[in-house]
Amino acid sequence: MKLVTFSREGFTRIGAIYPNKEIVDLNYAYQALLESEGKLRSEQIAEAYVPSTMEAFLQGGNESLSIARKAADYALNNRDSFKRTLVHAVENVKLEAPVQKPGKIICVGHNYREHIAEMGRELPPFPVVFAKFANAVIGPQDDIPFFPISEQLDYEAEFAFVVGQRARNVSQDDALNYVAGYTIANDVTYRDIQRRTLEWLQGKTVEGSAPMGPWLVTSDELSDPSGLNVRLTVNGEERQKTNTSNFVFDVKYLVEFLSNLMTLEPGDIVLTGTPGGVGVARDPQVFLKDGDVVKIEIDKIGYLENRVKRAGEGK
Amino acid sequence: MKLVTFSREGFTRIGAIYPNKEIVDLNYAYQALLESEGKLRSEQIAEAYVPSTMEAFLQGGNESLSIARKAADYALNNRDSFKRTLVHAVENVKLEAPVQKPGKIICVGHNYREHIAEMGRELPPFPVVFAKFANAVIGPQDDIPFFPISEQLDYEAEFAFVVGQRARNVSQDDALNYVAGYTIANDVTYRDIQRRTLEWLQGKTVEGSAPMGPWLVTSDELSDPSGLNVRLTVNGEERQKTNTSNFVFDVKYLVEFLSNLMTLEPGDIVLTGTPGGVGVARDPQVFLKDGDVVKIEIDKIGYLENRVKRAGEGK
Repeated sequence: MKLVTFSREGFTRIGAIYPNKEIVDLNYAYQALLESEGKLRSEQIAEAYVPSTMEAFLQGGNESLSIARKAADYALNNRDSFKRTLVHAVENVKLEAPVQKPGKIICVGHNYREHIAEMGRELPPFPVVFAKFANAVIGPQDDIPFFPISEQLDYEAEFAFVVGQRARNVSQDDALNYVAGYTIANDVTYRDIQRRTLEWLQGKTVEGSAPMGPWLVTSDELSDPSGLNVRLTVNGEERQKTNTSNFVFDVKYLVEFLSNLMTLEPGDIVLTGTPGGVGVARDPQVFLKDGDVVKIEIDKIGYLENRVKRAGEGK
Repeated sequence: MKLVTFSREGFTRIGAIYPNKEIVDLNYAYQALLESEGKLRSEQIAEAYVPSTMEAFLQGGNESLSIARKAADYALNNRDSFKRTLVHAVENVKLEAPVQKPGKIICVGHNYREHIAEMGRELPPFPVVFAKFANAVIGPQDDIPFFPISEQLDYEAEFAFVVGQRARNVSQDDALNYVAGYTIANDVTYRDIQRRTLEWLQGKTVEGSAPMGPWLVTSDELSDPSGLNVRLTVNGEERQKTNTSNFVFDVKYLVEFLSNLMTLEPGDIVLTGTPGGVGVARDPQVFLKDGDVVKIEIDKIGYLENRVKRAGEGK
């Protein structure tokens, strides 16, 4: 299943998106299904099992996912059975980041073997991890704001996973059961600000610097996160290319490693690292500028494309 | 005003605490006041203006604070006027961290002049900032869990401020208007884990490693955050001592600096840094052990005292 967060007429809700680009509103779909079964309190039951925000929906785990799947089937076959619209054409809504307010955005650095080898470094014994905050999250149809605080705006293509159930001291064998699904993220970075001090946070969590989407591919549909090609282009020109088989620390390892330190919660997002080819490491260096289009493609997910837009101070 | 978050009978709510250690439940107090005025929908009005979680309450800004103050006065003078308990003795409740789920916990490193001088370093041109996540938050009556993942558990006394209104590109002149108030935090750190990689996050956001409290002193009561003595003891022995006048980057500067990078939201917490005297920097090094009592005292706030307790894996 491909889960989206979308907005329309001031409401932000979750849906399932299909190859024909139709989106089913999952909460309304379940209300419609319940009504068809003659249930009372269909709105409250739907809010409990298929809430309309992704974080809350993910908390319901496989039970909610399985209900949502049945509800979506019902809606596709009974489009006019409910007082509100059940099925939207994608062009009639705005797609948002799949998870709007993740409690944690954990980023991994230096995680591709070939890139580390190319730099002549040893493979690291531990993952480097750092943070972004939820203020950075933007969606697949948003522009990347380029604030006049730096001239060194850079991209980082990242394969990301979203936590599906509370995880603490989870072993690698069980790890994938704790992953709700996968998406694409751009770990947009203000390089000079990142490098002003040893700790990267200040250059990593600037407003709007975490484009994500376009959807969350659930882990029943994408069951093996290895072997996926990752490719980033700027205005059509290839800048980064790798495959998730090149991870030093793969998804299973990261779930174990992180959950041994802290409790991971549904909706937490882990950005698994970027390969070589970022702008700051090129010769000559090249940074993003107003109007550039950054596109990241990952097998079995799709692509995330955002335009860079000069922003005024304070916007 | 001193604002607390407290729990009792499975409910977690906010209150004002008084020198005689009585706590007024602010949301119920406002409901009681509204009922005494013959208002309909007193519960809904109270939820809107004086919600029962700190993050939501802080979003109401000075308007909510001023209503809460009136409501607390009413409750203290009309203790039996409501169907639920308005005033609790502190020993009948559990004090929790003032803010339970801050959207951001931003920590500042190397921020005390005398400590930097003592290390023979230059004053830094920019603050070092790094993150903890909300999973680390514990309260003033909780033990600091010491997980068997390291033998190097260390303390860091920190003066912390809590953001009171959404802040973006705020100038130093206006900065204190965006601060709801002040509290005490212990930036508990697993030193060896912090130092495994250049990025400190993994040693900083271990479960339970951000004790905070015991309350939030609002910025109308504590209007000048400079000139406050900060002192940390372990089992009564002094280990850290400084004064907030020694900041390299003071509260005003930090609000401007951080809000130029990102939007600060009500409930976000900034830990302003720790002075010299942490365990890892002592000669010989000394780390925390099971049963140690860490107490941090800050002028005009009070003290935060937590016991270290060996935790089993996965707890």
